[in-house]
Amino acid sequence: MTSSIQLALKRLRFHVHQTPLVESSQLNRMLGARILFKAENLQKVGAFKARGACNCLIARIESGEMPIRVIANSSGNHAQAVAWAARQFSIPATIYMPKNVSSIKAQATRAYGAEVIFGDDRAEVDQMTEEASEDEGVFWIPPYNHHDVIAGQGTSVFEVLEQDQEFDAVFAPCGGGGLLSGCLIACREFSEHIQVIGVEPSEACDAYESVKTGKIQRLSEAPDTIADGARTLSIGNKTYPHLQQLDDWFLAEEEDILYWTQWLNHLLKIRVEPTAAMVMQGVVGWLRKQRENKRLLVVLSGGNMDAQTTAKIWKRDRLCITPGKKYPLR
Amino acid sequence: MTSSIQLALKRLRFHVHQTPLVESSQLNRMLGARILFKAENLQKVGAFKARGACNCLIARIESGEMPIRVIANSSGNHAQAVAWAARQFSIPATIYMPKNVSSIKAQATRAYGAEVIFGDDRAEVDQMTEEASEDEGVFWIPPYNHHDVIAGQGTSVFEVLEQDQEFDAVFAPCGGGGLLSGCLIACREFSEHIQVIGVEPSEACDAYESVKTGKIQRLSEAPDTIADGARTLSIGNKTYPHLQQLDDWFLAEEEDILYWTQWLNHLLKIRVEPTAAMVMQGVVGWLRKQRENKRLLVVLSGGNMDAQTTAKIWKRDRLCITPGKKYPLR
Repeated sequence: MTSSIQLALKRLRFHVHQTPLVESSQLNRMLGARILFKAENLQKVGAFKARGACNCLIARIESGEMPIRVIANSSGNHAQAVAWAARQFSIPATIYMPKNVSSIKAQATRAYGAEVIFGDDRAEVDQMTEEASEDEGVFWIPPYNHHDVIAGQGTSVFEVLEQDQEFDAVFAPCGGGGLLSGCLIACREFSEHIQVIGVEPSEACDAYESVKTGKIQRLSEAPDTIADGARTLSIGNKTYPHLQQLDDWFLAEEEDILYWTQWLNHLLKIRVEPTAAMVMQGVVGWLRKQRENKRLLVVLSGGNMDAQTTAKIWKRDRLCITPGKKYPLR
Repeated sequence: MTSSIQLALKRLRFHVHQTPLVESSQLNRMLGARILFKAENLQKVGAFKARGACNCLIARIESGEMPIRVIANSSGNHAQAVAWAARQFSIPATIYMPKNVSSIKAQATRAYGAEVIFGDDRAEVDQMTEEASEDEGVFWIPPYNHHDVIAGQGTSVFEVLEQDQEFDAVFAPCGGGGLLSGCLIACREFSEHIQVIGVEPSEACDAYESVKTGKIQRLSEAPDTIADGARTLSIGNKTYPHLQQLDDWFLAEEEDILYWTQWLNHLLKIRVEPTAAMVMQGVVGWLRKQRENKRLLVVLSGGNMDAQTTAKIWKRDRLCITPGKKYPLR
């Protein structure tokens, strides 16, 4: 039987990039492990989000309900992903954003052909999207809490494991949990032995708390973290059951997120956003508990940062402290 | 007959990466041309310099003179390139650097196994290298003014043209002229119709002035430009004859270099250093003079920036001005 991820992979094959695996021999030496990075920052729109949005839209089209318009409310990578996916099928797209979003994000979304409508704040944006979704033929693509979105995100790891399953553990960041849920499903399809590990900012650890307390926890307001992909207020009822099955969780402090963002940009020579780089905090935490040399897969979720965020990341030199010294593993 | 570049390509095949060609559909749309970037920032050591240093060393070994030690004086990408090349053949390497070099550059050079020796200033460093080069079995790899270095750098463009010669023009930055000379030789081997164009910072336009005046011009002191790969005081007598044959030259102001560095990092999602990004100023200048849609090849020379340089680049938001608005082409 074809699984949901296999089906998604088939659907996406001619739309998304099969992104490269990259690594840094210097990093491997410093941490005493082999760390392969799935470079989803080189994916269409610069993030894995292209997979989920596109799979969700194709599934809808296949079901016979061709949307007249596609909509989403997002100020992040999901906005561009939906705009891009809609254009693949020449469907008009409208993205609702709060007006304080940085101009480059609105600009990038428009560059993929979408109309951008601003609301005063998040609450107004949510309401506008809700109302628009009631019009006939409008399809609202959710950022994570949807079976087809989860399956789409999972293809990022599935296409690696299809060719090489020799990983001890797979790491991914957690926002709403779509990527991590997809990773978990993909890994379990291949082996019981690949651990799947989630990383969240300490400042936005609602997923970790949800799993720990056995009940979905919701943040009262958007958390103050540089990892903007993890600012989601809560995970969803579709991602929660998958997240409960993860093998381990790690939390990253803001300083560690900034530190690893500088180091991954420097070592890999590709643009890595804070939400992607924070996963390294989980990698070093997990490696500390291990005996032998391990082989890890890290999903580099994206590479989109506006100028202000980039300036904040590089304000202070964090390359002067080497991981070997800051994170003695043995 | 095998040309010097074909020979270099054969030598390098198992040592350097055949780097990918990348492009941005958004940039192509904005400038009304197809621009393919040869991503030498993803080369070994993060720069095309690995090619020239390695070819030069292999040529020496093939001549029967196996060096006992390899040396170089550099605080830039050439330092890491020589350290890396020496390690390919288990030859000890010593790199001389001025002591005010940023710690990450010395650290990266050491990470490739080289010994780093600091001098008080550039003059002292030059003298130390000169003296060390007189010891028996010591091979001093020059940064650009050497036939085999030039041929090595030229392989970056040669390996593209071997598969696809449909380019109207090839663009590269100019420091000492090694890369540009190699590009010129490579292009001329394939076609008379591919224009080869050089770009230099306005603040360090010694190569442009040399070609214009018909005599090698030498700067009295290191120029103050963010494009550190172009801070070379003068081109060499081996690169000059090639540079005289270029089809056009463009100069980039500091503000334009910063502007394009932000935009290429943002659009391509890879780490592009200022020396590589400044070439875009030549691209827009050249495109303004053209009638039809053109297909261009840009050599992205490297992706190495320390934290201070990166902070300087991103201090002010330059992504809020789109190229279409700032550089109206038509």
